[in-house]
Amino acid sequence: MAGGLGSRFWPISNSDTPKQFIDVMGVGKSMLQMTFERFEKFCRREQIVIVTGEHYADQVREQIPSLEPHQVVVEPMRRNTAPCIAYAAAIINQRDPEATIIVSPADHAIFKQDKFEADMLQAVDVVGSHDWIITLGAQPTKPETSYGYIQFREQASLENAKNLHKVVTFTEKPPVEMARQFIASGEFFWNAGIFVWRLPILMQAYRDFLPAIAETFFSLGIDTPHEDLERVYAHSEAISVDNGIMEKASNVHVMEAGFGWSDVETWDSLYDVSLRDSHGNAILGGNVFTYNTKNTIVTMPDEKGKTVVVEGLDGYIVAASDDTLMICRRSQEEMVFRFASDVALKELIDKK
Amino acid sequence: MAGGLGSRFWPISNSDTPKQFIDVMGVGKSMLQMTFERFEKFCRREQIVIVTGEHYADQVREQIPSLEPHQVVVEPMRRNTAPCIAYAAAIINQRDPEATIIVSPADHAIFKQDKFEADMLQAVDVVGSHDWIITLGAQPTKPETSYGYIQFREQASLENAKNLHKVVTFTEKPPVEMARQFIASGEFFWNAGIFVWRLPILMQAYRDFLPAIAETFFSLGIDTPHEDLERVYAHSEAISVDNGIMEKASNVHVMEAGFGWSDVETWDSLYDVSLRDSHGNAILGGNVFTYNTKNTIVTMPDEKGKTVVVEGLDGYIVAASDDTLMICRRSQEEMVFRFASDVALKELIDKK
Repeated sequence: MAGGLGSRFWPISNSDTPKQFIDVMGVGKSMLQMTFERFEKFCRREQIVIVTGEHYADQVREQIPSLEPHQVVVEPMRRNTAPCIAYAAAIINQRDPEATIIVSPADHAIFKQDKFEADMLQAVDVVGSHDWIITLGAQPTKPETSYGYIQFREQASLENAKNLHKVVTFTEKPPVEMARQFIASGEFFWNAGIFVWRLPILMQAYRDFLPAIAETFFSLGIDTPHEDLERVYAHSEAISVDNGIMEKASNVHVMEAGFGWSDVETWDSLYDVSLRDSHGNAILGGNVFTYNTKNTIVTMPDEKGKTVVVEGLDGYIVAASDDTLMICRRSQEEMVFRFASDVALKELIDKK
Repeated sequence: MAGGLGSRFWPISNSDTPKQFIDVMGVGKSMLQMTFERFEKFCRREQIVIVTGEHYADQVREQIPSLEPHQVVVEPMRRNTAPCIAYAAAIINQRDPEATIIVSPADHAIFKQDKFEADMLQAVDVVGSHDWIITLGAQPTKPETSYGYIQFREQASLENAKNLHKVVTFTEKPPVEMARQFIASGEFFWNAGIFVWRLPILMQAYRDFLPAIAETFFSLGIDTPHEDLERVYAHSEAISVDNGIMEKASNVHVMEAGFGWSDVETWDSLYDVSLRDSHGNAILGGNVFTYNTKNTIVTMPDEKGKTVVVEGLDGYIVAASDDTLMICRRSQEEMVFRFASDVALKELIDKK
């Protein structure tokens, strides 16, 4: 799934080039490219399907030039994850009705490739012999309020699978006090947004819990005329797969992820997951020189050749795209939405 | 005189493009262009001669395209202001031995054009009937240690010229305590580096106080072969006109400048002379948005189209050239030399 709007990393990402297309981590690859390579290690690359929006399809093809036409599934409009997965499932169904499907966001960070591969192969193995939906859960490290939480019960009744649990509840973005209680109870994982299921189980879940989506989307295919596709999307409910299916289905199991995960949705989470120097500075891009500076994150994914000298900052974000530079305290990162809208408004006025 | 190396405004100026060629003030014109326009208002433009180094001659011609060849005098090497003025004087002497000459740096700021013009015309008038050297002095406003100071005596014996004084001493860059005493005494001006004299008086002063320079430089001309010019310069003493002539000549008078002057040699002096918003921010270039920010100077002369968002800074310099961004506390501005050398060293290492 590579259709997100990701504008939290303004100015380095924006709705034209959202986070999945940006080298947010400063490693020389976009989040999408990293995700693709992660799966390519244990999937046949021609079996990887990328769902994105019309506005982003060309960027997907540019960033992964080897893709065949059927591998880029283009949604005519945004309707959240349930329709997105249903459409991709319908297309996969045309090629392989018995496929096992791993659903994954294209813009999350995974820190241990080996563990990721082992977990995925285990999950694929488990759903091969059980009619389960497996969702991946990450051990929470702080009462993050922007994540979804999965409450689990005792271990699943399965040999050699201590990391598999039956799911009790899903809770999206809880208040901080609730998140604290969740963590204290030891019964909650963060929802990593990765699902593993066989196609027949997936389709049955849609028929059971989202019958309107199942009826319209499962008749779509790679050759569906654009106007039909648009009509289906326009009439569809916009709902997440978590709300629409996971919260309701009784066969959902959560697998504790051993691979280290972050959705890297905020500057602070990016800072948290980045390599830092002895002064706590995370230097993600550019030719950066720091003096009397600490706890500061510097990134300019498009501007690798640029030199940046930073003196006397403590706890700042310094981020530049090719046309915009932002300097902002880390504690004020939620102001980026205001910055983005102020700048857009000014551009609008200047054009008039 | 447009041959300075001006690297104090790194990264917006450097030895390839020193301060005189930069729109330091954020007005859409370089210091050189502003200086040229200032004189053009009351001099015939073809009488303006610009002395610069070989490395800078093309930039002079680009910035002032209307210049005729004889108006750009190119020094083969840097030998401070006394040789520079002597060479220009020799060339002017070929065209008009009775010329009155105003010598001026190309990279200073003048705030009141009308007053400047009036002062210049008065000075030209005075030296027309007196064998004097007039130097312009600015009323000091703080014990600046990077300026030259001119001690003056009683008013000159001249009707209608209350602003003219006989000069007693010149002092370059005094310690701060001395500068304080100078100001307290009320007997000192800042040396604005602008001199007005008739050519015969100028040449006589050189013959009296810098005879070696007079002998070799006054035989130069616009058609002197480059190798001869190089030999003269290579053998010349490097000395300022202040040290070599002004401190020694007895006919030097200082005119109190009514026009508002700054040599704009430091980030702090630029901040001082810039228009500031109600939070004390001096926004000199770029499409700048400030939030919770005060006492900060933002400038990016080459990057007018760039958007800059600054949040949570107090007392900083934010400056960008097309390839380098600097964020530095104003109180640490002397660190720019270290920044420039660290960056240059890194570039050198990267090339190897």
